[in-house]
Amino acid sequence: MNERNTALKFAENNYNKFQKTLTEFLEIPSISTSAENQNAMRLAAIFVENYLQSIGIKETKILETAGHPAVFGNYASKKKNAPTILVYGHYDVQPPDPIDLWESPPFSPEQRGDYLYGRGASDMKGQISASLAAVESILQNGDPHLNIKFIYEGEEEIGSPNLPPILKEYADLLKCDVVLNPDAGMISPNTPTIVYGLRGLAYFELKIFGPSHDLHSGLFGGIVQNPAQVLCDLISGMKDQDGIIQLDGYYDDVIELSENEKLELSRLPIRDSDLLDQTGVRQLWGEKGFTSIERTGARPTLDVNGMLSGFTGEGSKTVIPAWAMAKISMRLVPNQDPEKVHQQLRRYITENVPDTVTWDLRKFAGGRATIANTKQPGVIALAQALQSVWGTKPVFKREGGSIPVVSEMQKTIGTDSVLTGFGLPNDNIHSPNERLHLPTWKKGILALIHFFYNFAEFYEN
Amino acid sequence: MNERNTALKFAENNYNKFQKTLTEFLEIPSISTSAENQNAMRLAAIFVENYLQSIGIKETKILETAGHPAVFGNYASKKKNAPTILVYGHYDVQPPDPIDLWESPPFSPEQRGDYLYGRGASDMKGQISASLAAVESILQNGDPHLNIKFIYEGEEEIGSPNLPPILKEYADLLKCDVVLNPDAGMISPNTPTIVYGLRGLAYFELKIFGPSHDLHSGLFGGIVQNPAQVLCDLISGMKDQDGIIQLDGYYDDVIELSENEKLELSRLPIRDSDLLDQTGVRQLWGEKGFTSIERTGARPTLDVNGMLSGFTGEGSKTVIPAWAMAKISMRLVPNQDPEKVHQQLRRYITENVPDTVTWDLRKFAGGRATIANTKQPGVIALAQALQSVWGTKPVFKREGGSIPVVSEMQKTIGTDSVLTGFGLPNDNIHSPNERLHLPTWKKGILALIHFFYNFAEFYEN
Repeated sequence: MNERNTALKFAENNYNKFQKTLTEFLEIPSISTSAENQNAMRLAAIFVENYLQSIGIKETKILETAGHPAVFGNYASKKKNAPTILVYGHYDVQPPDPIDLWESPPFSPEQRGDYLYGRGASDMKGQISASLAAVESILQNGDPHLNIKFIYEGEEEIGSPNLPPILKEYADLLKCDVVLNPDAGMISPNTPTIVYGLRGLAYFELKIFGPSHDLHSGLFGGIVQNPAQVLCDLISGMKDQDGIIQLDGYYDDVIELSENEKLELSRLPIRDSDLLDQTGVRQLWGEKGFTSIERTGARPTLDVNGMLSGFTGEGSKTVIPAWAMAKISMRLVPNQDPEKVHQQLRRYITENVPDTVTWDLRKFAGGRATIANTKQPGVIALAQALQSVWGTKPVFKREGGSIPVVSEMQKTIGTDSVLTGFGLPNDNIHSPNERLHLPTWKKGILALIHFFYNFAEFYEN
Repeated sequence: MNERNTALKFAENNYNKFQKTLTEFLEIPSISTSAENQNAMRLAAIFVENYLQSIGIKETKILETAGHPAVFGNYASKKKNAPTILVYGHYDVQPPDPIDLWESPPFSPEQRGDYLYGRGASDMKGQISASLAAVESILQNGDPHLNIKFIYEGEEEIGSPNLPPILKEYADLLKCDVVLNPDAGMISPNTPTIVYGLRGLAYFELKIFGPSHDLHSGLFGGIVQNPAQVLCDLISGMKDQDGIIQLDGYYDDVIELSENEKLELSRLPIRDSDLLDQTGVRQLWGEKGFTSIERTGARPTLDVNGMLSGFTGEGSKTVIPAWAMAKISMRLVPNQDPEKVHQQLRRYITENVPDTVTWDLRKFAGGRATIANTKQPGVIALAQALQSVWGTKPVFKREGGSIPVVSEMQKTIGTDSVLTGFGLPNDNIHSPNERLHLPTWKKGILALIHFFYNFAEFYEN
């Protein structure tokens, strides 16, 4: 108990140092989806490895993959049979587009008021730095009777395509009693949150090819089918006017919420007015018969993520485009299978596309949804830790986002993940002006210190 | 007759010089729709004025407009009451996008075989240079008993928004017996063509606004309506599956083709196999009950010219876009009114857009369709001129493109336009690798020499 207090005190005395290191981390444009940022990705991996070394994790290793490398670290307790926590994180970030909407440059972090602005500040370099700050605070205090392992990947934002082989190859190295995954957020600054369910993801790029080149819409308008029109027809037909997805068999594997779970979810302090504020839409809209929390947590979606065709500059250009492209993704719920919905989408296109065009459907990496057991030691240790700092019991939530690593960890190394995090809904993650709420982040560091000690004590007794 | 032969000989001896000047003209990136190319637009106007001066047109003037300037020139015959031809042209060009599909840079003209490649080579700097080469060949020969005026605008490719006030302001200066407009093309290298009908144009930009910023599709997917989906729904509903445009009242003012006109159009030597070659589509497609020539010449269209929303880079980004945009244009036929179809489109959107989004519809300049009298002296003089060079009677065609200036000339200065040109269907106008077929262009110069003399002789007698 004394050690715990010393660690907490150390953290409080070193916030400035932690934040300075985070700022340096945020300056690296580690955009995993961009071919131009290969060097930055490598730099970020090295940064993470050095960070681990600097806080006393002497055993580190860069794990090469077919894509961006992962970083491994290991603190081995002197105590025999000490329990093991594996801390997960991803050092890659989303692209900053549309870049002109940023108030300060995405990779020149800037503190304004209580917020630190920059791409990755919340998702999730800020969460990595909170974990490492907690571990640093503990280790400067002496051995915590706990093994702490680290795995930081560089491809989470592109669906972790090369994580499964890594997890398989290093399954022994990564063996642990629980995975701490701080890539989930909080409902509000006063509501510590543990996520027990995550949606899965299936992401596609659909291209429709019409003429061999952009045509003059005067000379040829009326005799060729426009590929942008075909794309719109296809997309429009994917949902009915109530938002129900029309792919054949799409809902077959969806597990409906039990009445009990509906009741629990209804207790979450998320109001539609908050969601209106966070999204800025005129009205919320979604599947009939479900609340907003149910819609984001337990119902599958189909969304257009991007569209491009023909002339998109200022003014007018009278062309019939040669092709039209859409990025389309689905958030999946238990027990949907990403490959199965892929085939459903492919069948839908095959059956509905006209003969006048050709098409190509590419599948990007996806993952299944997950549901965790809330009675395991890791969850209990975390719940107590959050309560110690916030003075209130955490809420348990099903999250709308997708973290493929969670299902992969379960599958490959056989361990459940405990999901939390200190990002807030209005952090603008994946959007311009991403930011980190520093007071919450500081509380998060303290909570993680508690979590590590709680978990060790659980096995001590 | 002797003068005519001297002029023809002069032209044949000076092709290289003409082509060199055209090449310099093509090097100026006079893209009217692009704000960045203001300087190039001015340069191109000055180039045209200098060109006029260099071939003996001493009276020239740059006509300033609210947008890009127009260039006026006047050769006044010594003969009293000589007839007057007004030569029209536009020195602006389409944007070169998608630029990476060009085999040689769009503004570094390159001759490969019989073709000169470069943006504007066919549409229509090559046509301007053919006209000026013809006039130069005539004038070096002495007074042709013909007044020749010139008006070159810089905004044709953006719908000639500032031409109507110019035509009104300088109506006296522009007075003439006929307008020669060489901005129409030929059906094939062996088929000289006179265009007697043109479609009109109405061009729009539609924007749908959803969330205030791009949203994380995991956190918010399922509770907001996706503006790209809304845009697709709207576009999809604008046509039925047979390609019939669904705007209420859209076909009300369309004049149906007479049986006689259908018969004439059926004689045009344009085969569907040619159109397949030119477009590169798998199949032609269009309104049921009409031939391809009728569809492009005499039926109205609605085409998506461009679309943009959300993330369009490589790889994946899981956002719900804040907005979605489409450029949508219609080719109009007699007697459709651009403003009336604008209101029909606006009404369609108002009635079909959901309350979850806001929207904005911008109208770009448009124009009505036109039909010319084929019995007038200018048409007869041109038909004879084309026959003299090609040894075959020209065909008369209704063109699918739109040249707002033709209806404006009729309205403001009260004169019909005679439409021809020496571009070919596979010149890739408005597309990458635009090119000019030099042998046809050379014939065109000779034909225009004949045209000027024919027209003068008509009034001589």
